[in-house]
Amino acid sequence: MKEELKVKKIKDGTVIDHIKGGMGRKVLDILDIGGNFPETSALLMNVPSKRIGKKDIVKIENKTLKKDEVDEIALIAPNATWNVIKDYKVVKKSRIELPDLIEGILKCPNPKCISNADEPVKSKFKVEEREPVKLRCNYCERIIDLKDVL
Amino acid sequence: MKEELKVKKIKDGTVIDHIKGGMGRKVLDILDIGGNFPETSALLMNVPSKRIGKKDIVKIENKTLKKDEVDEIALIAPNATWNVIKDYKVVKKSRIELPDLIEGILKCPNPKCISNADEPVKSKFKVEEREPVKLRCNYCERIIDLKDVL
Repeated sequence: MKEELKVKKIKDGTVIDHIKGGMGRKVLDILDIGGNFPETSALLMNVPSKRIGKKDIVKIENKTLKKDEVDEIALIAPNATWNVIKDYKVVKKSRIELPDLIEGILKCPNPKCISNADEPVKSKFKVEEREPVKLRCNYCERIIDLKDVL
Repeated sequence: MKEELKVKKIKDGTVIDHIKGGMGRKVLDILDIGGNFPETSALLMNVPSKRIGKKDIVKIENKTLKKDEVDEIALIAPNATWNVIKDYKVVKKSRIELPDLIEGILKCPNPKCISNADEPVKSKFKVEEREPVKLRCNYCERIIDLKDVL
C-alpha cells in the first residue's frame, strides 16, 4: 500500500508561493482561512526551496486577493510569489512587495497617537527599513518594529 | 502554463485523514506545527469526502503521535483516520476514537474544583456523551460541554 497525497489542480483561485518557512499559517490568518472558510485550500510547510531554503505554500480555490490582504502578506512574507489561476492556468504571476506606505492594516502602538483617538483616523506607516522591517507612523512619527504591531 | 501542486510522498511520518472540515488547523495547534516546527508538513482543507462531506487532512514528515496527542485530537476530530508511514508505505491504519477517560489534557472550568487547587492534581474527565461530547469531571462531577474547555 503506497501513501501518496496529491492536491488536485484548482480551476480558479490563488497560489501564494515562496512564503518564508514557518509563516504560512500567518498567511492563512490574514486571509481568514480555516474554521468556516468553505473552499478547498492547502497549506504546505517547510518545502525545500532552492531560492529561500525552506518555504511554505498556500493554495486557495475560488479566492482572489484584495489589496489590503496583499499588503498585509507583504509584511510577513515579503518576496512571496502570487499566482492567479483561471481555468487551470496561471494567468498572472507577480512578486508580493512591501509598499512604501501601509494604510489601515496596523494599529500604532503609541496610545497617545492621534490614530488611536476616538475619532477614527486611518493608520498610515511609512516603510523606513525593509530587512528587518521598520515602520514610521505618519502621525506621531514613532519608529516601530514589525514584531510590535503584528 | 499548467498549475499543479503535488505533495511529495513522505518516507516516514503520520497522516491524519477524515478530520471534520474546518478542524485541521486545530489539529496543527495540538501538534504544535507551524512557526518553528522544522519538518515538511501539509494541511489540506475542505477536501470532498464521500464519508463525511468535507474533510481536512494533515500530513507530517518524521512525526509519530503520542497518546495524549491522539486523545486530544479525538476530542475535536473523532473518527479521524490515523496512518503511520514507514519507508513510503502505510504500516498501520487506525481510527482515532475518543477514550472513556480523558486525563491531563483539559482543565476543569470549575474554579473551586480540587484539580485547580495549588497542589497539582492531574485532571480527569469521564466521557458521558459522545455526540456532541459531554464530559464529567472526575473530582467535582461537573458536567462540561467540550466547547467550554477547548
